[in-house]
Amino acid sequence: MIHCSSIGKTALLIAMADGSETEAYVSRAREKGFDVVTGKVGSMDVQKIIAAVETAAKREGLTDDSYRSQHALYHAILDALQGLGRGPLQLGNILRTVGLRFAIVRGPRTLEDMDDLWIAVSMYGMIGAPIKGHEHEVCGLGINHL
Amino acid sequence: MIHCSSIGKTALLIAMADGSETEAYVSRAREKGFDVVTGKVGSMDVQKIIAAVETAAKREGLTDDSYRSQHALYHAILDALQGLGRGPLQLGNILRTVGLRFAIVRGPRTLEDMDDLWIAVSMYGMIGAPIKGHEHEVCGLGINHL
Amino acid sequence: MIHCSSIGKTALLIAMADGSETEAYVSRAREKGFDVVTGKVGSMDVQKIIAAVETAAKREGLTDDSYRSQHALYHAILDALQGLGRGPLQLGNILRTVGLRFAIVRGPRTLEDMDDLWIAVSMYGMIGAPIKGHEHEVCGLGINHL
Amino acid sequence: MIHCSSIGKTALLIAMADGSETEAYVSRAREKGFDVVTGKVGSMDVQKIIAAVETAAKREGLTDDSYRSQHALYHAILDALQGLGRGPLQLGNILRTVGLRFAIVRGPRTLEDMDDLWIAVSMYGMIGAPIKGHEHEVCGLGINHL
Amino acid sequence: MIHCSSIGKTALLIAMADGSETEAYVSRAREKGFDVVTGKVGSMDVQKIIAAVETAAKREGLTDDSYRSQHALYHAILDALQGLGRGPLQLGNILRTVGLRFAIVRGPRTLEDMDDLWIAVSMYGMIGAPIKGHEHEVCGLGINHL
Amino acid sequence: MIHCSSIGKTALLIAMADGSETEAYVSRAREKGFDVVTGKVGSMDVQKIIAAVETAAKREGLTDDSYRSQHALYHAILDALQGLGRGPLQLGNILRTVGLRFAIVRGPRTLEDMDDLWIAVSMYGMIGAPIKGHEHEVCGLGINHL
Repeated sequence: MIHCSSIGKTALLIAMADGSETEAYVSRAREKGFDVVTGKVGSMDVQKIIAAVETAAKREGLTDDSYRSQHALYHAILDALQGLGRGPLQLGNILRTVGLRFAIVRGPRTLEDMDDLWIAVSMYGMIGAPIKGHEHEVCGLGINHL
Repeated sequence: MIHCSSIGKTALLIAMADGSETEAYVSRAREKGFDVVTGKVGSMDVQKIIAAVETAAKREGLTDDSYRSQHALYHAILDALQGLGRGPLQLGNILRTVGLRFAIVRGPRTLEDMDDLWIAVSMYGMIGAPIKGHEHEVCGLGINHL
Repeated sequence: MIHCSSIGKTALLIAMADGSETEAYVSRAREKGFDVVTGKVGSMDVQKIIAAVETAAKREGLTDDSYRSQHALYHAILDALQGLGRGPLQLGNILRTVGLRFAIVRGPRTLEDMDDLWIAVSMYGMIGAPIKGHEHEVCGLGINHL
Repeated sequence: MIHCSSIGKTALLIAMADGSETEAYVSRAREKGFDVVTGKVGSMDVQKIIAAVETAAKREGLTDDSYRSQHALYHAILDALQGLGRGPLQLGNILRTVGLRFAIVRGPRTLEDMDDLWIAVSMYGMIGAPIKGHEHEVCGLGINHL
Repeated sequence: MIHCSSIGKTALLIAMADGSETEAYVSRAREKGFDVVTGKVGSMDVQKIIAAVETAAKREGLTDDSYRSQHALYHAILDALQGLGRGPLQLGNILRTVGLRFAIVRGPRTLEDMDDLWIAVSMYGMIGAPIKGHEHEVCGLGINHL
Repeated sequence: MIHCSSIGKTALLIAMADGSETEAYVSRAREKGFDVVTGKVGSMDVQKIIAAVETAAKREGLTDDSYRSQHALYHAILDALQGLGRGPLQLGNILRTVGLRFAIVRGPRTLEDMDDLWIAVSMYGMIGAPIKGHEHEVCGLGINHL
């Protein structure tokens, strides 16, 4: 396993892990004190990706009902989407689609500095034309203070 | 080690690997047939990051002297920088700085489809204010056909 | 009342004024020679906001049927929307919605320089998730020559 | 005829040519060794413009079924669309529409350097409000290595 | 005085107030429980504007030494700059300059909901060519959770 | 000669014309009633391109000393630059350079509708790395009401 004591790398490794690896990376992260949620989403609609991440975070209690925590998560998602979109935050309306695994991690920025609470959203998957096999990998990471 | 048979994940894992891990990930990637270059760069100037990646690629022969391969690499770099910048492709002129490890990987998109040659540029590191410790992680990935 | 002899501040103050204040600010602006229209719009569709402002301007005669004046207004609206969107000019498709008061003001840039005719579009209101109370204020101002 | 030995100018002149001129410019380009496709599209949906160009290219054999050539074309199209959109890559959702002639040209960058194969996408037409006559000209050019 | 119980309007009115009005608006805001800092800056360098706002906030104690509060302020500043730049976050390198008054306000989003702490950055002034009088008004507002 | 009765195509053809062709296209445009200025500029600094176009326009009287006409020209230039930059309005700071011919044309949008006065800015040339021959064509067109 790649050494990891920071919130962003933790989120990226979980989103990139495959099958049974995922559970191992999630467990390690939780042992270190990070709260973790993972999920999958495929869509041509950016808002469905945002909604999938927000719903997963709320369901697992990484965000509460406060607007404050929702605001933090929303902007971490938008930042992650910039890595995906690489310019326009658009999918179907510029004729492309994505299939993603994502991870949301809540905790300190690093284990060396436990004072503050931050949230990281990572996305990893495939982006491409709506034609089977016409796609390449894509990755995004957004980090915000909670 | 996270299972990996694709060019983008290969590039990301190498950029995220620490110290001795790096060599292990680079070796595995080369055994699988990928060409790999890694490097480090810290700067407030976007052009210095571009130049560092281009120079590393040329020095190790991942790009040749043709404009064609330089063009492919340049746009892969710009795409990776979008994940870093998350909006504006600016660093010092919006008062932020980065410290990065990067990887450039040349090969097929995946080991399951060896027909074509692609290039991936990954960047992983810290972005923040020019104040020690005022920074968080950042990640970018760009992929282009060669 | 905040001192005001310029087209942009006039537009902003009217859009920010509440209830009965609005009429006072509109009256003062008209006495100074500015043409003024105000309106409200709430939507997840950017085009509905543009249409609401364009319709209000046309109805009150701030723009005529010429493409020229429509072109001036359209780009003032887009500029105001940039302050709202702060990056992407998107609402519902990145899962956010706005409720706005807007003002359109036609006149000189300032009362000290009456030579030219300009148009200002201001927008003030709330932006947020489509959840009651999950929103914060937002403001935009666009100015163009007529 | 404007002197022309390069892929981009070739594409632009064909998209700007009117009626019978088009055939003359296409013929000259083909005599010089360029592959050429032309078409027309009008829409408020960006994805319909992308699809129209991709379909024309595929129908005439300028791209094959490989993802590689589709990827090259797609990004040339996006680049051309930036000249059209001049900021946001949006049409109907910011209340504007376009009517375009486009050309796709495959060949060397210039006749003086025949080594590589590139693809150029040009678009020329009118952009404006969805009101007859409320429009002005617009132009875009995107070039990518094949 | 325009009725005001919210953090964003408070910040906007202070930045738009002139001379002796400023003190009146600042006093009212402080009486309501908002922390307020104001300042002026003129520059062709975006980073100087960011630095001026950050320095003012730190000097008056609106942000502490924690990265967390600096991160919140930084992104509120970037959001306000989007309203100024209306597209590119650039000034001198696209040959324009600004002269601004700004306000930083810390407090609840509104006096009706005192639970959370937010930060608002407003900017109001003139943008234009580096030629006397060739300028028009500009405004930006950014709001973030603290 | 390509048939041309519109301001944008007129500007584009002049910027694309080579050597002696330029004079022919300029003459034809003037005979039709358009005011025309042409020029050349090469730079890694966006502001130098803007300044070159503005200076040429002023020297030949296409704009007067009014801010109004400067404002119209400035935004036409920015629009043309979007076609060049295709995303970021940056050159040297993302390690690229341009060599351009440009044209500024003042007149009606088309000869069929002589009512209004508009301004068009076209740019055509090469963009690329600061390495000889590592470049491809680029084109931009911006149109604004005067």
